[in-house]
Amino acid sequence: MIDVYQASSQARVNAALEPLFVAPSPELARLYDAMRYSVMNGGKRVRPLLAYAACEALGVDAAQANGAACAVELIHAYSLVHDDLPAMDDDDLRRGQPTTHRAFDEACAILAGDGLQSLAFSALLDPRLSGVNAEIRLRMVTALASAAGPAGMVGGQAIDLGSVGLKLDQQALEYMHRHKTGALIEAAVHLGALASGRAEAVQLAALQTYARAIGLAFQVQDDILDVESDTATLGKRQGADIARDKPTYPSLLGLEAAKAYALELRDQALAALRPFDAAAAPLRDLARYIVERRH
Amino acid sequence: MIDVYQASSQARVNAALEPLFVAPSPELARLYDAMRYSVMNGGKRVRPLLAYAACEALGVDAAQANGAACAVELIHAYSLVHDDLPAMDDDDLRRGQPTTHRAFDEACAILAGDGLQSLAFSALLDPRLSGVNAEIRLRMVTALASAAGPAGMVGGQAIDLGSVGLKLDQQALEYMHRHKTGALIEAAVHLGALASGRAEAVQLAALQTYARAIGLAFQVQDDILDVESDTATLGKRQGADIARDKPTYPSLLGLEAAKAYALELRDQALAALRPFDAAAAPLRDLARYIVERRH
Repeated sequence: MIDVYQASSQARVNAALEPLFVAPSPELARLYDAMRYSVMNGGKRVRPLLAYAACEALGVDAAQANGAACAVELIHAYSLVHDDLPAMDDDDLRRGQPTTHRAFDEACAILAGDGLQSLAFSALLDPRLSGVNAEIRLRMVTALASAAGPAGMVGGQAIDLGSVGLKLDQQALEYMHRHKTGALIEAAVHLGALASGRAEAVQLAALQTYARAIGLAFQVQDDILDVESDTATLGKRQGADIARDKPTYPSLLGLEAAKAYALELRDQALAALRPFDAAAAPLRDLARYIVERRH
Repeated sequence: MIDVYQASSQARVNAALEPLFVAPSPELARLYDAMRYSVMNGGKRVRPLLAYAACEALGVDAAQANGAACAVELIHAYSLVHDDLPAMDDDDLRRGQPTTHRAFDEACAILAGDGLQSLAFSALLDPRLSGVNAEIRLRMVTALASAAGPAGMVGGQAIDLGSVGLKLDQQALEYMHRHKTGALIEAAVHLGALASGRAEAVQLAALQTYARAIGLAFQVQDDILDVESDTATLGKRQGADIARDKPTYPSLLGLEAAKAYALELRDQALAALRPFDAAAAPLRDLARYIVERRH
């Protein structure tokens, strides 16, 4: 089920993203090419899926969450471009392809990332949202800025960089992940729900609980896969986090306890969705998929 | 006159900016310190001044443009942090102080810049704006994203980097500057005017003509000063642009013709303001100041 939904989400968000990378003039062609290269790379589009699924969970057609879906994916893509830079993680490969600074150059990658962040705010306010109350659209802008910014994703990157070689405890590790990956996953769900135009406060709160749980589950499972998978499956160097002495859930809890924790988080996520009807099926399926996936 | 107005704009925007750099937790202290360091550096705050002055030109107290003023300054500051990086201009000094990647480190500077861009969108929607129609506030978000993004400032940086060593003609040079510096200067005026909540289309168009002219004048004068000033006055290496074989107005038109062009642009800017009353005095003063300043 989730495979079908993921494929349709992927197709939907890719169709919405592609027109954003048409350079307005030949002078800007290289920058736009670098942005397209950084985004249109066969990504799983988990965050767009979450935005679409949250919008549908509230009984509204997923297409209304197109702006939200594009925005969170653009923020995610820019963070990967900057994260891969020599001064950061210094990665040559991303999904088996040269990273943006390798395929273009470092300056171009910095600017492409910068441009993608701006584009996210442009894309968020999709014309299709014009039926949604303007105050709600403004809340979407504030939520995106907050999730992407220094108290959100960027803050998580900074904490992560500062924690290499440190012996973090579980609380500190979770604090880092709640910023680095959790904030944007929460934003995907929150923005998708807001884009429906009919999210009530109690529903937004339940969806936030769901998003927090799957965000963490996603990370725990990533850590597990980093230990278990090989380079071919994952498209990056195996055990890369461990090699750099970054704290991970398996290194902290042990592999089996990390797996049990991932399942516990899945159950928390499913519990939060209990008040929702069958329209929340994709959100439920995703919670299951996150801890079952092999890559 | 403009000195007094600039000092009060500076004080006003600095007071509005400072609280943005209070880290929400100790883990984030270094990132927030790097952001504060990058912004609270004694900058002239020309863009905030423009936002305030445009708001006042429409008869509304400057304080209502606080969000706009902070936003454009944060975008400007982030662009300087990234522009100074080793992969870009590789500058060690900015306003006579170590650049952010020198005072902290390169990864921290990349993240500080990224965080400042997000903060700009948070700051734009200042609570004081809540009296302004929500659709207008949404237009402000779109305008900021567009001015900062790949079709605006970031695009200008990309064109600039791609033009080193090339023999640009005046048209190509102007195209670059209209993106690199012009887009954000136009946005400062546009956002300040929108923040007034009472800008009519014809006024916005006149202010855009004004902003285009002073944006270009600012750049022409910068090029002139780069030739004429010494390191002590300017706080950066003299003739740096020429040394890197970047095209400049003096190198293209000759020094005297460049000076005449700056004056012509000033007069265009003043002509655009003719429909405005005495409340536009700061905008008029600034147009004069730009071509008279020595640093």
